[in-house]
Amino acid sequence: MAGLFHRRLRLRTLHAGEERPTPSPTAAPERRPFSRVTPEDMAFFSKIIPGRTITDPDILEASNVDWLKSVRGFSEVLLRPQTTEEVSQILGYCNSRNLAVSPQGGNTGLVGGSVPVYDEIILSTALMNNVLNFDSVSGILSCQAGCVLENLSLYLEDSDYIMPLDLGAKGSCHIGGNVATNAGGLRLLRYGSLRGTVLGLEVVLADGRVLDCLATLRKDNTGYDLKQLFIGSEGTLGVITAVTILCPRKPKAVNVAFLGCESFEQLLQTFQLCRGMLGEILSAFEFLDRECMRLLNTHLKLANPITDCPFYIVIETSGSNPTHDEEKLHQFLEEAMTSSQVIDGTVATEEAKIKALWSLRERVTEALTHDGFTYKYDISLPVERIYQLVTDMREHLGDRAKSVVGYGHVGDGNLHLNITSPTKDPDLLASIEPFVYEWTARFQGSISAEHGLGLKKRNYIYYSKASLAVALMGNIKIMLDPKGILNPYKTLPDDLQ
Amino acid sequence: MAGLFHRRLRLRTLHAGEERPTPSPTAAPERRPFSRVTPEDMAFFSKIIPGRTITDPDILEASNVDWLKSVRGFSEVLLRPQTTEEVSQILGYCNSRNLAVSPQGGNTGLVGGSVPVYDEIILSTALMNNVLNFDSVSGILSCQAGCVLENLSLYLEDSDYIMPLDLGAKGSCHIGGNVATNAGGLRLLRYGSLRGTVLGLEVVLADGRVLDCLATLRKDNTGYDLKQLFIGSEGTLGVITAVTILCPRKPKAVNVAFLGCESFEQLLQTFQLCRGMLGEILSAFEFLDRECMRLLNTHLKLANPITDCPFYIVIETSGSNPTHDEEKLHQFLEEAMTSSQVIDGTVATEEAKIKALWSLRERVTEALTHDGFTYKYDISLPVERIYQLVTDMREHLGDRAKSVVGYGHVGDGNLHLNITSPTKDPDLLASIEPFVYEWTARFQGSISAEHGLGLKKRNYIYYSKASLAVALMGNIKIMLDPKGILNPYKTLPDDLQ
Repeated sequence: MAGLFHRRLRLRTLHAGEERPTPSPTAAPERRPFSRVTPEDMAFFSKIIPGRTITDPDILEASNVDWLKSVRGFSEVLLRPQTTEEVSQILGYCNSRNLAVSPQGGNTGLVGGSVPVYDEIILSTALMNNVLNFDSVSGILSCQAGCVLENLSLYLEDSDYIMPLDLGAKGSCHIGGNVATNAGGLRLLRYGSLRGTVLGLEVVLADGRVLDCLATLRKDNTGYDLKQLFIGSEGTLGVITAVTILCPRKPKAVNVAFLGCESFEQLLQTFQLCRGMLGEILSAFEFLDRECMRLLNTHLKLANPITDCPFYIVIETSGSNPTHDEEKLHQFLEEAMTSSQVIDGTVATEEAKIKALWSLRERVTEALTHDGFTYKYDISLPVERIYQLVTDMREHLGDRAKSVVGYGHVGDGNLHLNITSPTKDPDLLASIEPFVYEWTARFQGSISAEHGLGLKKRNYIYYSKASLAVALMGNIKIMLDPKGILNPYKTLPDDLQ
Repeated sequence: MAGLFHRRLRLRTLHAGEERPTPSPTAAPERRPFSRVTPEDMAFFSKIIPGRTITDPDILEASNVDWLKSVRGFSEVLLRPQTTEEVSQILGYCNSRNLAVSPQGGNTGLVGGSVPVYDEIILSTALMNNVLNFDSVSGILSCQAGCVLENLSLYLEDSDYIMPLDLGAKGSCHIGGNVATNAGGLRLLRYGSLRGTVLGLEVVLADGRVLDCLATLRKDNTGYDLKQLFIGSEGTLGVITAVTILCPRKPKAVNVAFLGCESFEQLLQTFQLCRGMLGEILSAFEFLDRECMRLLNTHLKLANPITDCPFYIVIETSGSNPTHDEEKLHQFLEEAMTSSQVIDGTVATEEAKIKALWSLRERVTEALTHDGFTYKYDISLPVERIYQLVTDMREHLGDRAKSVVGYGHVGDGNLHLNITSPTKDPDLLASIEPFVYEWTARFQGSISAEHGLGLKKRNYIYYSKASLAVALMGNIKIMLDPKGILNPYKTLPDDLQ
């Protein structure tokens, strides 16, 4: 990539005003001068959504704190609309009153994007959980934003379809939140990103107007594709109220192999071999390191099904012909074993064993929460580089960290680097950041592959994006939410809030 | 879809100001008060790109007229930059001088989007045709915008990769134009749209600033995905100068079947059967009707390889295991023949025969140009509906049209409806439009599935998009190109130009 890198540098020097600003510290942003909720405001909300305006501190607690328990807001009002019209009326009112709003789905985000920072009103999609339509010929599903991902998967099962995305948080996360954060997950390798599978969105804008882009067509080139603006904008540009999404057919055969490698280089060789030999039936290629396995053993009592190895791979195949798929998988495994790329392995074809193998990958996040306070990094890099960051970080931190682990989506060049310590440790954090971001920027990586920026990473955007790009994002925010009431302090850096 | 339809109506009535405006006629727009090119301007351009400022009327002719010879501009200046920096300087200058610019790739567009309307300066990407980088591990290609699609395919062949898109115009169209128009084409069913496969773009904005979104990562959630704004914006928001795109591995086996059906219902049954039995190896499911075959016979002397039928299907499979693929295809064909869904067919596995079968689908557009003046419509609909529009149109027009033919991408619900007459015929046009648009809107279809709006369809956008959506598009245009110098009179309706 040397050519591109030079080119970029050249382009940057063209525009003298565009040097990368020094990132601000992660410190909490200052509260902006939004109005505070008054009894008159509460009366208005109660009229629109009677019985669904929550002020009970115990219920609010769960909505004020993120899943990782790493950030906390101080909201005193949680609203639970059921319809688009209700969301429209709420936002129209909040905008006119200059009341800030924090939209919330399943609150499973990892970057503090889904909870308020100060006293923003929490607007929950929890009661917007109806399927609107499913067309079993085309596989196109339309539903409200608050549908839980796993419920949608179960709903589709009868019709022999699956959701095009799957992730560890599926039991809690909402499809609206998935779209708002452009969630990646475990099936991206096979079914592509939400930018391709989401066919339509209905969005309520900051001023309450309803933007109807709820098409159910695979192709539509009539003007600019506005829905793309809202995919991945983390609730800062509008509140997604409904989604149409293209669902793939349920594969007739699914196989999972859990393999062990001696080195990351062997793991990459296995990946290349696998792409060639499994081709179109490869649906996931995930990895975890020995440290992850130790945490799974220690904290969740999950047993390692194969020999102890430095690296473990989860390979999933999904296809339309069980015999063909097994044959392909068998040939691949034979080749991988013969060439010593893989030193041990096990294969599952029944559902229970498949789930057990997948849980070794899916439950690493959970195991980490038991290990201590976790510093989480979600990095995109050229695939050859992804583990080098873990090794360098381990060396860099020495014994200051409790655990330094790496796992993630090899197929997408996406590393989850996690560092734990017994308690929150500002000194450790100062050793990790900006080291991790500078390392990533050096190889033109992304400092947030799939988690988004939310509150925690907002000020690091300049490590991955040019100043002009960030400035344009600020213009888009002003265009769609001139008062900045939607999910303030998130996504955009402090200088553009 | 009744539920959704009702919901939409309900939402619309919420916002009284948002009724659909009556579409303006297709008449040419009025020239806007841009400056005219002066000798001083020419001197400036000659300094930036010496020897590449064209004013020869013979050379300009080909750039002023579109591929269909249906629209003509009157530009007197064609500029051929080689680098991003040159484009940047040209646009910076044009913006300050209020000179309008019509960006042009391979000029293969079908909606008059790629040629000037009045005297706009033509900015051609023809000399920006270098590959910048190809990473054979990840399959990520970076290249300048003027690379011809077919040349990129040939370039990738050595590394065993293919481009994720393929279309009839591949020998002339530029990748930058493909991205600017969000081209669909023949492989969309398998590899998805450019919104998923384009990983990065470099774009020169109207004022000459260079927006560097040229990432080479599969996943990147750091802020809003700006590149999506430019995909499908038809050169009205910026000039794409470089593209990075994710390329799939070249399949080890490709098979093509050419089949005949008695009815469109049987064709749809065959499609469903095919999706189930060919599953992940299905890479195209295209159709043409008997009228298309007649034109291929008459104008291009292409012979029908099977029995005469009302409908023909082209099915392509691409996979990693030739034996498995042939077995799947064989089982599918046996089932389709036994159940009488298909009445005749032929299969090709060698390249020459595959090309011959594909040309029956790919050369329909060419055959139409020999049949007379062609009115072209590119419609997205629920797949069950797509042929009903052809039947209804035939009945509606009676003998006023010379030919009424239907072909397209069944897998994407995308119909190409074409109507010919011996010469340009305003009366015939008045019978076709707005009939065709009203019919499409009635079934929530898109009036432009893949061709875009360009000059010809700009005023029909309201048939597929809500007023609020179109108004937001206008705001985006103003944000990125406040003087409106980029590809004026295109994409947005006259009331927003």
